[in-house]
Amino acid sequence: MKILLIIADGLGDRPFESLGWKTPLEAAHKPNLNTLAKEGMIGLIDPIKPGIIPGSDTSHLNYLGYDPFKYYTGRGPFEAMGTGLTLRGGDVAFRANFATVDEKGVVIDRRAGRIREGTPELSKPLNMKIEDVEILFKEGTEHRAALVLRGQGITTNVTDNDPHAENLRPKEIVATSNDGKKTARILNEFYNRSLDILKSQRVNADRKKAGLKEANAILYRGGGVVPALPNFSDRHSMSGGYIAGVALVAGICKLIGLKDFTPKGVTGSTDTNVLGKFSAAVQALEEVDFVLVNVKGTDVAGHDGNGIVKKEFIEKIDKVLGETIMKIRSDILICFTGDHSTPASVKEHTSDPVPILLHYPGCRRDGVGEFDEIKAKDGYLRLRGSDLMNVLLSSANRSEKYGA
Amino acid sequence: MKILLIIADGLGDRPFESLGWKTPLEAAHKPNLNTLAKEGMIGLIDPIKPGIIPGSDTSHLNYLGYDPFKYYTGRGPFEAMGTGLTLRGGDVAFRANFATVDEKGVVIDRRAGRIREGTPELSKPLNMKIEDVEILFKEGTEHRAALVLRGQGITTNVTDNDPHAENLRPKEIVATSNDGKKTARILNEFYNRSLDILKSQRVNADRKKAGLKEANAILYRGGGVVPALPNFSDRHSMSGGYIAGVALVAGICKLIGLKDFTPKGVTGSTDTNVLGKFSAAVQALEEVDFVLVNVKGTDVAGHDGNGIVKKEFIEKIDKVLGETIMKIRSDILICFTGDHSTPASVKEHTSDPVPILLHYPGCRRDGVGEFDEIKAKDGYLRLRGSDLMNVLLSSANRSEKYGA
Repeated sequence: MKILLIIADGLGDRPFESLGWKTPLEAAHKPNLNTLAKEGMIGLIDPIKPGIIPGSDTSHLNYLGYDPFKYYTGRGPFEAMGTGLTLRGGDVAFRANFATVDEKGVVIDRRAGRIREGTPELSKPLNMKIEDVEILFKEGTEHRAALVLRGQGITTNVTDNDPHAENLRPKEIVATSNDGKKTARILNEFYNRSLDILKSQRVNADRKKAGLKEANAILYRGGGVVPALPNFSDRHSMSGGYIAGVALVAGICKLIGLKDFTPKGVTGSTDTNVLGKFSAAVQALEEVDFVLVNVKGTDVAGHDGNGIVKKEFIEKIDKVLGETIMKIRSDILICFTGDHSTPASVKEHTSDPVPILLHYPGCRRDGVGEFDEIKAKDGYLRLRGSDLMNVLLSSANRSEKYGA
Repeated sequence: MKILLIIADGLGDRPFESLGWKTPLEAAHKPNLNTLAKEGMIGLIDPIKPGIIPGSDTSHLNYLGYDPFKYYTGRGPFEAMGTGLTLRGGDVAFRANFATVDEKGVVIDRRAGRIREGTPELSKPLNMKIEDVEILFKEGTEHRAALVLRGQGITTNVTDNDPHAENLRPKEIVATSNDGKKTARILNEFYNRSLDILKSQRVNADRKKAGLKEANAILYRGGGVVPALPNFSDRHSMSGGYIAGVALVAGICKLIGLKDFTPKGVTGSTDTNVLGKFSAAVQALEEVDFVLVNVKGTDVAGHDGNGIVKKEFIEKIDKVLGETIMKIRSDILICFTGDHSTPASVKEHTSDPVPILLHYPGCRRDGVGEFDEIKAKDGYLRLRGSDLMNVLLSSANRSEKYGA
């Protein structure tokens, strides 16, 4: 049986005042999710384990069968993959921002006015060689970018230059151990060269003219070594694909060799084309055995503290489910869950367990016909993230008996 | 307090069409199980962990307090024990079949027409010595048998000769690493000698005359080293016994030193003498502290895809419970569960969690008065197989405090 794993990013929530103290999922009109719940089983999943606040990266890794305590080496490598860079095991990748510094070199905007255009042009000349080290630099969404160092003797044992606040100077990069000295030297040199390069770019001249903040400096943080992740198809004996608008999730999927079925023009926000994503998933399932779809709008609304937008986005998902996935539900295994909770009242990830729904032909039915965080406790499932791929594989008749 | 662990093999199921989309356990008339549920607590157990499809061997090991990830060395050793062979740590045991080959040596029936009679006579002359290696060969149920090699330098690093399909020749045994060369040589020699020996047996002459397929070749597969399992009584500080009709379960019980209380004539099927088994259990509890009873009929019906027979077998168990165990229930701890799910709709083991019932004097009552897969989610227990022996021991006041 083929497997569709839909992850509504940051799905889990808490009661929200303007929803009459219901959660967004509880308050949402969601006839299709409720039908799936009624025909299947629901429950709760702790993406990592109880009390651990998941990142989207650690959670997705765990869900996909890669123990994050073994494979997670920091956000840098995963975001870098998501920008489209093809990385190699051993590369050291940092998360980077385009930022604005004033004439004294003080950071006045860590996000360069959340620059949206021109970052490809700004990024290209930042690819260079310093000593024997290759520098890869690639823009991500808005002000975000990836900075990758490839070469002998490069390590993560250096401090960040990101001051993590405005009205401060970027910090001098220093080695935190002896084997970080070369990396620190290269990064400091890169910072200085990048100031000169960015200053002279046409994009910045245009921004200045338009009264926008110049993207004239690069801040970086969160360096990590790109891990060698075993290939998904080899690990789980099935072919796989993904549909994801956000770099972080796409990066993980690429790293394990999932095929990209993401349609053009999807974004990681609430105005994303959910119909396009779900239609692409239906298509992808014709070609591969496993498809992961990540929709990010739930998380974005959570981070924005907007429970009503989150509820509406869930309703949009439900409506589109009805137009796409519901029509093939008797042929495939469907799992609908989130990678973590992002309660609108908290505006950040929390460790609250996440509702999960499992639906496949002939499955047990737990009799709970509404899908939300609270009803989930009456459901059948109580999983940890590390169980998920095993449950999906065995439920879809894709795994071997352990013993006889 | 003494402990009775009743394992209805393959108990767990899924909704079954001809039972009005109830599970066999749900549909069964089971007043005694419901009484135990009402007076005790129920819940769900993942025999290994969520999403892992248990074998009867790995599951029984785990339940009995032996981590299968540490002790499980393949089905061969466990089945061999179950035939009645007394094995030693280090022996290499294979699962074997009596098979039928044609005059060209091509396998025309991997199970020799599911031969039921004469296998003891056929097996005896297959015990021999080749070089300095002792060969033990013992019939199991029907066409099944165990082949054990005992001697210096014997390993599992060889291929099987079982072609796993008909109209193929048995495969040449080859070493998969250097230390498998001796074993491969012995096994090939054994295969050739066994052809000559079996050909000349009276049993086969009779079968030929009767138009039955001759049991004239031995196929073997799944070699494993017999593990040195710590003794049950030492490990859990209590004496123990077992009642089991199937070789695999009996083999595990023997290997850990449980005493055999199985009455003559019990089988591993739906026509087994359940009353005999449960009466024997009551008797055994007079002598030892812990008794495991395995009834196999539930699993057999599941594998046969017969949900109605499974339901009826559960009703038979329930009735016999009323005549035996119910009468001593105020004096002992009773645990009733399965070792895995074998849904009649799937005809194979699945990873669905298994309902479990725990009943002992003074225990908490969860108020759920019906025992089935669905109600189980409203019960008290949510265990993994590795928890079970700890729960039994501590509930029966048989374990030490961890700390002060």
